[in-house]
Amino acid sequence: MARRILVIGGLAAGPSAASKAKRVNPAAEVVLFEQGSDVSYGICEIPYFIAGEVDGSKLVVNTPDQLRQKKQIEVRAQHRVEEILPTQRKIIVRDFKQGRTFEEPYDKLIIATGSSPRQLGIEGEESRNVFSVSSLEDGHRIHRYIEAEKPSHAVIIGGGYIGMEMCECLRAREIGVTLLHNQSLPMKGLERAAQEDVRSELERKGVQFVAHARTQGFVADRARRVTQVVTDQGTFEADIVIVAIGVKPNSALAAAAGVTLGTAGGILTDQRQQTNIDNVFAAGDCCETRNVATNKFMYIPLATIASKQGWVAGENAAGGSALFKGAVRAVGVRVFDLEVARVGLSAAEAESCGFRPVTETISALSRVGMMPGSKRLNVTLIADKSSRRLLGANLWGGEGAVLRSNICATLIQHKITIDDMQQLDLVYSPPFSPLWDPLLVAANTVRKKL
Amino acid sequence: MARRILVIGGLAAGPSAASKAKRVNPAAEVVLFEQGSDVSYGICEIPYFIAGEVDGSKLVVNTPDQLRQKKQIEVRAQHRVEEILPTQRKIIVRDFKQGRTFEEPYDKLIIATGSSPRQLGIEGEESRNVFSVSSLEDGHRIHRYIEAEKPSHAVIIGGGYIGMEMCECLRAREIGVTLLHNQSLPMKGLERAAQEDVRSELERKGVQFVAHARTQGFVADRARRVTQVVTDQGTFEADIVIVAIGVKPNSALAAAAGVTLGTAGGILTDQRQQTNIDNVFAAGDCCETRNVATNKFMYIPLATIASKQGWVAGENAAGGSALFKGAVRAVGVRVFDLEVARVGLSAAEAESCGFRPVTETISALSRVGMMPGSKRLNVTLIADKSSRRLLGANLWGGEGAVLRSNICATLIQHKITIDDMQQLDLVYSPPFSPLWDPLLVAANTVRKKL
Repeated sequence: MARRILVIGGLAAGPSAASKAKRVNPAAEVVLFEQGSDVSYGICEIPYFIAGEVDGSKLVVNTPDQLRQKKQIEVRAQHRVEEILPTQRKIIVRDFKQGRTFEEPYDKLIIATGSSPRQLGIEGEESRNVFSVSSLEDGHRIHRYIEAEKPSHAVIIGGGYIGMEMCECLRAREIGVTLLHNQSLPMKGLERAAQEDVRSELERKGVQFVAHARTQGFVADRARRVTQVVTDQGTFEADIVIVAIGVKPNSALAAAAGVTLGTAGGILTDQRQQTNIDNVFAAGDCCETRNVATNKFMYIPLATIASKQGWVAGENAAGGSALFKGAVRAVGVRVFDLEVARVGLSAAEAESCGFRPVTETISALSRVGMMPGSKRLNVTLIADKSSRRLLGANLWGGEGAVLRSNICATLIQHKITIDDMQQLDLVYSPPFSPLWDPLLVAANTVRKKL
Repeated sequence: MARRILVIGGLAAGPSAASKAKRVNPAAEVVLFEQGSDVSYGICEIPYFIAGEVDGSKLVVNTPDQLRQKKQIEVRAQHRVEEILPTQRKIIVRDFKQGRTFEEPYDKLIIATGSSPRQLGIEGEESRNVFSVSSLEDGHRIHRYIEAEKPSHAVIIGGGYIGMEMCECLRAREIGVTLLHNQSLPMKGLERAAQEDVRSELERKGVQFVAHARTQGFVADRARRVTQVVTDQGTFEADIVIVAIGVKPNSALAAAAGVTLGTAGGILTDQRQQTNIDNVFAAGDCCETRNVATNKFMYIPLATIASKQGWVAGENAAGGSALFKGAVRAVGVRVFDLEVARVGLSAAEAESCGFRPVTETISALSRVGMMPGSKRLNVTLIADKSSRRLLGANLWGGEGAVLRSNICATLIQHKITIDDMQQLDLVYSPPFSPLWDPLLVAANTVRKKL
């Protein structure tokens, strides 16, 4: 039985793993190391904090003291783990507060080092009004900057889902927004029909969407503040710049210790979340995840997956037995009045994985049409002509997209065919859903093409 | 190839069957007989029409003429089929308008005679202010009565989901409501926790809920209008009475022709929706339906099932090949501010079918708690200790109960275990759903008891 379980990383997977390990083996000493000051906070809520929708004081789920008191986890904030010595079952830790470095022995180690925002690698990126949105501190910095400097125009670089959320939250603060994106349409990974509606919604809400834009440089003033963003599509004025071009796994620490990485640079584990190294587990954004549709590793940095992997790593490190069987990749985002969800593979991904994707899009109503509150809802399904399985889905519209996308996620995860999707026995209730749910309409439509 | 396909019944399954038959075999002559004046209307929307939420003119989906013009289906309204002569492949039809009876030959026959409201069998039930809610004409009669007579107090007899909808719609018209129910709590089939919250919601919205009430008689005035409802729990004043105590299958016509019925009195069919008699199909509320969880026939009169069975019967009657593989039973209803859904088996049903049901209830939030609009959502799961499968679910709360119940319906239909339910990869997006969806919280909780 493991007496000493160390966890590296305090955001999502780390606290999840530590809590689970302690519950499974209350006798174990569980210590969590976090290089930042904060642990266990709602990173995904930060845009809504910036927008003024949620109270900043509520973002922290558990402080280090609360983790200690409520969950009996020892938390070492502002401690960076600098090296893992697997043959000696030790880690080397840097304590920023006291400026000292020391060793900690472990029986089991859980790596949950998370991800870092990708950077442009362009001069001026370190200016005081250029932000990413990848930590609580980032959130507070953006919030403080907006409160203090009252920027009137923002440039957001990156049209992924964080970019979408930031468009909405900055517009809510009555800040003008230019969104620079390196492709023709926003939200890579959505099919074209959904992407076009997302772009329309952005434009309807006053966001200037600039396609095919590659950022080439920043023009800064003497106060080290960017005033213009220079791209191959023109130069754009900015009082504040948000860079949201994705994240990359923090896997260097693990790799240096001999942990195997995948092609996307994330840590590879088995279904027990164990790495190739004895007594070393990993979970969350620092890992790659097995995609259940393809049975291949993929980089899917999502809090849902991190939490589940953390549980599994924690349970196994504590001597239990749990499996994480893989993920569908289920993502939802609000883009102003549009609810957008995407689950499973895109048509392009399906094609590249050897499937024969067939894609169909339908437009229906979220409730019985005659009922007040009924909204337009669109569904794109991606099915495989060979196996007839559902592989992916986009849902977007006025209401009900996210919760319905979870039905698609369930079907994908369990390799259910379009024929069986068409037979789903779903609720019909006028205030909530029509006789033929949009998902059934979509299944009927794509089935004709299989 | 069938040249002549006759359909008996014009509400849900009948038009669905006729339309599908015509699409599959456009050369066939498809004739639909309906004893009433109306076909193809939204029966489930009638309470919302009475409430004033929807426009009465929109209730009709297709008039007889529209079915003729849009779908090339010959419609004979006000024609009652009085006898089926399967050996001669003929039906005997009574034309109410012209007062004549004639024969119609068929190659294939589809019986979709629907259901009738159960009656109390008490004198006074035929009074002019006592109504059931089972046809468009009923809806218009209630609506007209309310408009003309301005009743100030209603007695609703029956606490099922139609009773719930009528409570809401009559309260929306500012009519006082007493609900008489023959059990201790409303909505039989829900587990106790949900039932109690439904009762509280009724009472919070001013409905007087009377438990264990058996109606014994009506007191009427000289205008043939009921003024009091007499029960073993007391006598209740009424200006209008709604009787909503369930429905029974209209299967006598079929039975008289030798069609086999089940123990609940509904027509039995195979998965092709064919009866035991050659060339005779059946679909909808006149049939029993195979419950996928138990693989037993059950009486489940729902429009969703009727429409799907109609499609299957229509396709097969027209020479195609389709299967209806059975139903979960998925029901959702709005009870004032409470969204209530029930899918699959109740614990009692599961027990009586030989399962070993384990039941757990959790209470969570519909969205991330700190987000505005987040509402309380409760989930009761019923799982089988032997197979570990999900068998049934109740969901109720401020939002998201119905759409989430569809995920449970999908799991039940595909015999998925609680262990796999716990692994579902569902969307986390602050405005729509929390990190751990209430369904995952519920699965984790019930799993500990398995």
